[in-house]
Amino acid sequence: MSTLAALKNHQVRLAKRPVGSPTRDNWSFTTEDVAEPGEGGVLVKTLALSLDPAMRGWMNEGKSYIPPVGIDEVMRAGGVGKVIASKNDKFAVGDLVSAGLGVQEYMLIPSDQVKRSGMFKIDSRAGSMTQWMNVLGMPGMTGYFGLMDVGLPKPGETVVVSGAAGAVGQTVGQLAKIKGCRVVGIAGGRAKCDWVVNELGFDACIDYKAGNVKAGLKEHCPKGVDIYFDNVGGEILDDVLARIGRGARIIICGAISQYNNTTAVQGPKNYLSLLVNRARMEGIVVFDYADRYHLAVAEMAGYLKDGRMKSKEDIVGGGVNAFPEALTKLFTGENFGKLVLQVAEG
Amino acid sequence: MSTLAALKNHQVRLAKRPVGSPTRDNWSFTTEDVAEPGEGGVLVKTLALSLDPAMRGWMNEGKSYIPPVGIDEVMRAGGVGKVIASKNDKFAVGDLVSAGLGVQEYMLIPSDQVKRSGMFKIDSRAGSMTQWMNVLGMPGMTGYFGLMDVGLPKPGETVVVSGAAGAVGQTVGQLAKIKGCRVVGIAGGRAKCDWVVNELGFDACIDYKAGNVKAGLKEHCPKGVDIYFDNVGGEILDDVLARIGRGARIIICGAISQYNNTTAVQGPKNYLSLLVNRARMEGIVVFDYADRYHLAVAEMAGYLKDGRMKSKEDIVGGGVNAFPEALTKLFTGENFGKLVLQVAEG
Repeated sequence: MSTLAALKNHQVRLAKRPVGSPTRDNWSFTTEDVAEPGEGGVLVKTLALSLDPAMRGWMNEGKSYIPPVGIDEVMRAGGVGKVIASKNDKFAVGDLVSAGLGVQEYMLIPSDQVKRSGMFKIDSRAGSMTQWMNVLGMPGMTGYFGLMDVGLPKPGETVVVSGAAGAVGQTVGQLAKIKGCRVVGIAGGRAKCDWVVNELGFDACIDYKAGNVKAGLKEHCPKGVDIYFDNVGGEILDDVLARIGRGARIIICGAISQYNNTTAVQGPKNYLSLLVNRARMEGIVVFDYADRYHLAVAEMAGYLKDGRMKSKEDIVGGGVNAFPEALTKLFTGENFGKLVLQVAEG
Repeated sequence: MSTLAALKNHQVRLAKRPVGSPTRDNWSFTTEDVAEPGEGGVLVKTLALSLDPAMRGWMNEGKSYIPPVGIDEVMRAGGVGKVIASKNDKFAVGDLVSAGLGVQEYMLIPSDQVKRSGMFKIDSRAGSMTQWMNVLGMPGMTGYFGLMDVGLPKPGETVVVSGAAGAVGQTVGQLAKIKGCRVVGIAGGRAKCDWVVNELGFDACIDYKAGNVKAGLKEHCPKGVDIYFDNVGGEILDDVLARIGRGARIIICGAISQYNNTTAVQGPKNYLSLLVNRARMEGIVVFDYADRYHLAVAEMAGYLKDGRMKSKEDIVGGGVNAFPEALTKLFTGENFGKLVLQVAEG
């Protein structure tokens, strides 16, 4: 372990809270020495980080489902890394782990933080490193529990999912197909829509950038929408509300169209459709299901293995220094598949 | 029955659909002869009509949970009447009945419509004629099933109800108290608030006309809101969304603040609070629970009898000709208690 002293940890910290879209000015870049773990501690080298829409919310001041990232703190991020030093019985050098690593190259986890970090060994037989950040990771779990526990899908029902080519969306749509539903995606651009239909097997996909969401919903959901998994909010949520059927369930997972708003969030003006249709709109936070992740992972790994579920990751290089620009791809819709920042070679 | 021929039936019909607040111009007034019922039919004399916020929605074109009232049709209204002629075994002259009578003085129900009209005899031992339009009628059933089936109240939870002094609101609040909840009402004006607290036993009531809803919610719901029964929509819905607790249930019963809007409905800009709090917003339509009305009526009649539930009706005279002006009281908040239009003496 004497080589550790030569390592430098490059980090990205929140310098100031953004107004609207985050830019490079919102971040500061620091370098620290890498220290050896103490008794019970683990040192992890970051291999790749998961970039998620939720990050935008963590940058804001104020109460939410988890505390905001503090000013000058290393930006919160989940990721996959390799244990390079360990004084903890449960983790050995060379183990691949998933953990809240933060946007930095090394994460020293002291003994008393190991459990709290949620760190666990990943099983390469279940899926690749990037799949562990996608279908088998937080986005996959979000899609799984949102659809299954809140959406309560029944065979033959019509499921609509926005952000269909994104990490959560691809999971939701494919899982809904596996469960016997008719699935209509909403995504930006022909390429994403074609992929969702041709590769993932959705029944249809509406290109919102072509501006025909209402007409598309009417065409592809002739009997109304039974389940809507919402990742985007804004106009699209209103368009779907206008098409829901009786007893519909709307899962509120996110509202990426609204996160960089500098004015108030756009509330769904068609919310009274919930009344007319005796429908429900319900929020989901994935962490609530942590005690059942292993069950969902086992099920999803089975689908990956038998080919019924595919996954697509959009892997950006450049290491932690490229984080600010990589993150903005989520909000412009430039990413195609689960956005991953590669930090080091395995 | 030879006297029937001498009777005239004064009716109020929808002449044109309103834009914004309905006025007398939206109605036409017609007079028809009263005919004898044919085999299996019943003739009912309207005694009193229930005036409800939902009426405003029925006046609009377009798909809703029931078809709109057609142009030149007698305005839809529930009410209580007396059977004055019957060729139906189930109803005798003199019976007091509840039925969809419409805004008219007499309702001839042909044999094939008796069942469809939902007409039933009311039991004066359970409650007075006006209570049968209030706690034991549609508003009471709405409050009962909305609170119990969608709200799922647990003892000790905090329940907020808007339109607290109205027909639905008074039922919801008192029922929530009976079920062991802490209850905070929202109503317009000191008099209604005082009544809700002092007479109905709510724990607190916020006077929205005094403009302090946010502060009031903070003061009276220190642990957050577990159940919100929404009759009003608009700003108040947003204020409550900002105060809901984890796992909260919001029952969307109505949005009286929005019904006369000439612009788009104001969507709840704080709807992402559903996500943060893993909360749910769900619509209710009372008709779905028709097969269980008798159970709720029996329970509520018991509460009326033992004094745990009180009811207040705001009875307007003037007969069907006074209907247009009486209806507008709902939207200005002038009514104090369940609004009833008296049409004839019992």
